[in-house]
Amino acid sequence: MLYEINEKALKLESEGKKIIKLNIGDPDLATPPEIIEAAYDAMKRGKTKYSSAYGEKSLREKLASINKVYADNVAITPGAKWGVFSTMYLLLKDGGNVVIPTPYWTAYELIAKTLGAETRFVKTELDSNWKIDLETLESVIDRDTRMIILNNPSNPTSNVIEEKVLDGIVRIANDKRIPILSDEVYADISFAKTKRILEYGGDHILVTGFSKTFTMTGWRIGYVIGCTELIEKLAKLSQITFSNVPVFIQEAALKALELRDKLANKIKEEYRKRAKMASEILPKAKLEFSKPDAPFYVFPRRRGLDSEKFALNLLDKGVAVAPGTSFGDYREHFRISLTSPRDDLKTALNKICEAVE
Amino acid sequence: MLYEINEKALKLESEGKKIIKLNIGDPDLATPPEIIEAAYDAMKRGKTKYSSAYGEKSLREKLASINKVYADNVAITPGAKWGVFSTMYLLLKDGGNVVIPTPYWTAYELIAKTLGAETRFVKTELDSNWKIDLETLESVIDRDTRMIILNNPSNPTSNVIEEKVLDGIVRIANDKRIPILSDEVYADISFAKTKRILEYGGDHILVTGFSKTFTMTGWRIGYVIGCTELIEKLAKLSQITFSNVPVFIQEAALKALELRDKLANKIKEEYRKRAKMASEILPKAKLEFSKPDAPFYVFPRRRGLDSEKFALNLLDKGVAVAPGTSFGDYREHFRISLTSPRDDLKTALNKICEAVE
Repeated sequence: MLYEINEKALKLESEGKKIIKLNIGDPDLATPPEIIEAAYDAMKRGKTKYSSAYGEKSLREKLASINKVYADNVAITPGAKWGVFSTMYLLLKDGGNVVIPTPYWTAYELIAKTLGAETRFVKTELDSNWKIDLETLESVIDRDTRMIILNNPSNPTSNVIEEKVLDGIVRIANDKRIPILSDEVYADISFAKTKRILEYGGDHILVTGFSKTFTMTGWRIGYVIGCTELIEKLAKLSQITFSNVPVFIQEAALKALELRDKLANKIKEEYRKRAKMASEILPKAKLEFSKPDAPFYVFPRRRGLDSEKFALNLLDKGVAVAPGTSFGDYREHFRISLTSPRDDLKTALNKICEAVE
Repeated sequence: MLYEINEKALKLESEGKKIIKLNIGDPDLATPPEIIEAAYDAMKRGKTKYSSAYGEKSLREKLASINKVYADNVAITPGAKWGVFSTMYLLLKDGGNVVIPTPYWTAYELIAKTLGAETRFVKTELDSNWKIDLETLESVIDRDTRMIILNNPSNPTSNVIEEKVLDGIVRIANDKRIPILSDEVYADISFAKTKRILEYGGDHILVTGFSKTFTMTGWRIGYVIGCTELIEKLAKLSQITFSNVPVFIQEAALKALELRDKLANKIKEEYRKRAKMASEILPKAKLEFSKPDAPFYVFPRRRGLDSEKFALNLLDKGVAVAPGTSFGDYREHFRISLTSPRDDLKTALNKICEAVE
């Protein structure tokens, strides 16, 4: 229902209605002008041609050096989402199942469904601070399991996986020789220390992107880091689908990496303030949620709520949120993206409190 | 082998070697500055956010009016190639076969193979001017046939399907209720009158893009026109793969449409001259080929040639072409893209003649 609400929100907006869109993780901040100028400059230099399906050498080398891998381990993708889709496609196209902790980012489940792959969920709960239970994880894995997907920090909970728990997950995956796809799109702007999958070595897969750290959501650029065999397969899939990410967008991304610390800090500070605001307003309406470890989300619960009806009604009042059912079996929860300027956000949070009563 | 040669050519170039790249359909002309400025302007206006998976309303409406359909029949894709991939994915994912005349554009066959779909080829020959035989076509269709792919004008032959033949193909497809996917990326710059699939009505599918007509290859933008049911399915697939084509790229495409006649004529005239040059030089080396009806290719034959070895050897001499085996069972043919400035092209054509002797 996540995407339906988004298309409906866009439609209402195109009809002239004011919608405060807290339904998707699209930051209100503009893409920094330095990044825009880098793209423009590249266009004018003729970087408007077909290019390598792996991505530009310069960008791959830069990302390799940041992540302490080789350039051959890096593939540039049109968004982190494509990294997830294409990796899932390659690992699951001949059947098998994928293990996913819940609540999950909607796309994982939709992709699995589209691919006809079986999903095995490991449910986590607000009451235990979204902790992944290792015994449960181990019990759902069998010899048909082709991959485990982690989202660290998590969308929708903004929870960071504790280092000890992550150690345990990796141990289980290594024992059973199952690759972990770790989607870490929020890791560079996390408030809490976030251990990265690449620190463990092995054939695990990092998927991430430029969207969140650099407010480049609509540019559609991300990357996958994995073994060279996977990267070659991804490039072959790129060749028959989207060809390559526009080179001028890759040059903009290269510029973004130069601004990394400055931008990441700015975003972190802004979202810390927004998270604080949410923490002050939402409890008034008896909404319970865990303190966010990262941008952009809170995932509150209200006992007895039907979040689908709630989200549709709220949209008519000019606020878009995502119902908890989009993230697994969480009907009493809904997800708020803190992705509006603070004054709009305050208005929206108060409307949410009124509507929930 | 098409993509391997391309990656190898790019690698040689990155090592500082001069390669005249006649291996892919990437025009040497620059993207017109008006289009670049439109993209830049859109970026500065904040068109850098997530947006609709269907594409922007303004662009869909413009394309609908040009093609005399409704905006709901239009989906914007990251290149025509994505239009082909995603349509093939949707029509073939539950099995069945696809009928493709040969020589074909490499991607059709690679996509079918990746999807595990059976391909049924209808071979055409230089000696009968690449005419598709209707009886043969009808004989390969069975109840498991899910689609027919046409490429009109054709890559690699630059041949336009005769109107009478196309009438016959559509009649067969309609009788058997099989949709035709018509890839018409070269139609707007064709030298010869090209009848469009949309003129026939019915549930046939147009796939095309901005790359060739507007020298926007590296921008990755195209579109699909089909029944609303298909368009909705395509948008659902977009939502879980690349999300949306960057809005600033869609605004650049909208600007391109304004410049349509001017640009199309300019490209046509330039390629007419290049085709003439090829027609004068290549026969010296006993290379036979049909007169191109459209940009960008010639697909010459030399009896006894092993085009794979030939293409690899030629690459070492600084010219990249595509072996005929990339387009079906055409080992004695190779494809030359006339996509270099005329002086480079002349050098390359002469080198080809020398190498073939």
